[in-house]
Amino acid sequence: MIKTDILIIGAGPVGLFTVFEAGLVQLRCHLVDALPQPGGQLSEIYPKKPIYDIPGYPSILAQELVDNLMEQIAPFKPGFTLGERAESIARLEDGSFLLTTSRGTEINAPVIAIAGGLGCFEPRKPPISNLSQFEDKGVDYIIRDPEAYRNKRVVVAGGGDSALDWTIYLADVAEEVTLIHRRKEFRAAPDSVEKAFQLAESGRIRLLTDSQAIGLKGNGKLTDVVIKHKTEGELVQATDHFIPLFGLSPKLGPIADWGLNISKNAIEVDTLDYSTNVPGIYAIGDINTYEGKLKLILCGFHEATLMVQSAYKRINPEKKLSFKYTTVNGVNGF
Amino acid sequence: MIKTDILIIGAGPVGLFTVFEAGLVQLRCHLVDALPQPGGQLSEIYPKKPIYDIPGYPSILAQELVDNLMEQIAPFKPGFTLGERAESIARLEDGSFLLTTSRGTEINAPVIAIAGGLGCFEPRKPPISNLSQFEDKGVDYIIRDPEAYRNKRVVVAGGGDSALDWTIYLADVAEEVTLIHRRKEFRAAPDSVEKAFQLAESGRIRLLTDSQAIGLKGNGKLTDVVIKHKTEGELVQATDHFIPLFGLSPKLGPIADWGLNISKNAIEVDTLDYSTNVPGIYAIGDINTYEGKLKLILCGFHEATLMVQSAYKRINPEKKLSFKYTTVNGVNGF
Repeated sequence: MIKTDILIIGAGPVGLFTVFEAGLVQLRCHLVDALPQPGGQLSEIYPKKPIYDIPGYPSILAQELVDNLMEQIAPFKPGFTLGERAESIARLEDGSFLLTTSRGTEINAPVIAIAGGLGCFEPRKPPISNLSQFEDKGVDYIIRDPEAYRNKRVVVAGGGDSALDWTIYLADVAEEVTLIHRRKEFRAAPDSVEKAFQLAESGRIRLLTDSQAIGLKGNGKLTDVVIKHKTEGELVQATDHFIPLFGLSPKLGPIADWGLNISKNAIEVDTLDYSTNVPGIYAIGDINTYEGKLKLILCGFHEATLMVQSAYKRINPEKKLSFKYTTVNGVNGF
Repeated sequence: MIKTDILIIGAGPVGLFTVFEAGLVQLRCHLVDALPQPGGQLSEIYPKKPIYDIPGYPSILAQELVDNLMEQIAPFKPGFTLGERAESIARLEDGSFLLTTSRGTEINAPVIAIAGGLGCFEPRKPPISNLSQFEDKGVDYIIRDPEAYRNKRVVVAGGGDSALDWTIYLADVAEEVTLIHRRKEFRAAPDSVEKAFQLAESGRIRLLTDSQAIGLKGNGKLTDVVIKHKTEGELVQATDHFIPLFGLSPKLGPIADWGLNISKNAIEVDTLDYSTNVPGIYAIGDINTYEGKLKLILCGFHEATLMVQSAYKRINPEKKLSFKYTTVNGVNGF
């Protein structure tokens, strides 16, 4: 059994920064994440996209931010249990929590900080009967590394920002890009829509509106997508990859059953210290909700910082925490 | 008269970042600061000190952070009135504010965001009768650029972190460093105290405890400090610079008379949107106070972000603000 001071569920940017703030007050942390690597959404969904609203960074790639946070928390030697989902919690006699993961790992801590982002992500899938046969054999729901599509033929489906942005990006990378969308209108940034239409006009991508993928063909590996136009019938498009980008549907997962007050798929917290209704359990970052909540990484950083102060008082009720500036005292690791 | 959407008082890191968040929702900003350059404390007091608790930066020099913030907000073309102190405000008939600075500049805006840090800083000064005669002629209360002391003789006075840290730093820069302190004990980080004693033992600095500067000599320019030891009498120390580092005493200044609820030298705010008791005036960063407040830059960033949402609703009561991620939409300047 792993023992720690603060058990952090979710190793995204907010979970990671919690380790730093906890370390400053000499609290140790252990992080659990269902994903195989730290970084949460940033590493899993958009590692190569720039983020513009991290204060002090006019622009930073998502993965770069994760790498920097990992470096920032390194002095405090956090523990990681990755690739395992936080499943169930029990309260022990001493008031501490025992968390069990999907693989049976047990972690004990007096405080739990849920920094689970939007929860577990599941891609929204198009209704094609044999879709699952081609998953990882040509069908991808997330673009992890656009280089995987270099000189390949790809069919992207979707009408939102993700579909548009990746179509534009892949136009420079893939041998051939087809974008199919069910409607005529796109619900994406006007700039991107205009860009996509320009690319289509100049012949650099093929744009099929009023169209839907209705079937997949291949033998062990995807070879063709069957596309149906609203009025003009079907066409069979040879391709190496079919990438439906219909968004990700976040699910709270097992956390929903822990007795926490939930509202609109998020955990209700008190903004005094981002505590939940269960004493000892806090929720920070995108997974929490309160009046005026903004789902921004920078807000999660603030929430983590205030939460750690409250956790310290809970763990050390007898001690007085004297607040010290790192500029004066530096960072003293474990 | 200058007109803007959000008048920001204080061009420190939190005031600067407010411009970014305001720009994202198409609000324009104008900043007023008594200091001659943007950056607040960071540029004025410790530009060359590393900060370790900006999320995503394992370490960043204070001035570097200011430079990065200036780059981040550049697309939104903020206005600056620098070297002028915000003096008085009046409410106009249309409900907007008219601010007048110490030099008579008038700025009109529907919303004021006070991001004044700890207020106006005044250095605490030692009780030496002719001290003011030597200000800027050898007596400095703030070290702006340590290079100014290269190969010079300096006498530092004080017993806190600032005095210790600069003494240690200047030991490598100045020709000769003397640290004088009234007591035997220092109220600074134990590491720094140890380091200073080591430097004294090895002869690289002179350390005089139980001592006070009681007089200054010179003709137009400082030449000597008269130092009195508690029991051993006086000595005259030839020097180029005398640097009393007794801390800065923050003063709210004229803001204290604006009818805002003040508690312990800070402005009380509602954490929903960091609004003060005066509708249309917000307070963010170190200058505000609420239960659990931490005076950290990263908290100010969060406060600025939530405050801007509220300011938007105030300025555009009829419009619905649709929240957009920069990762999806990029940053579109003015």
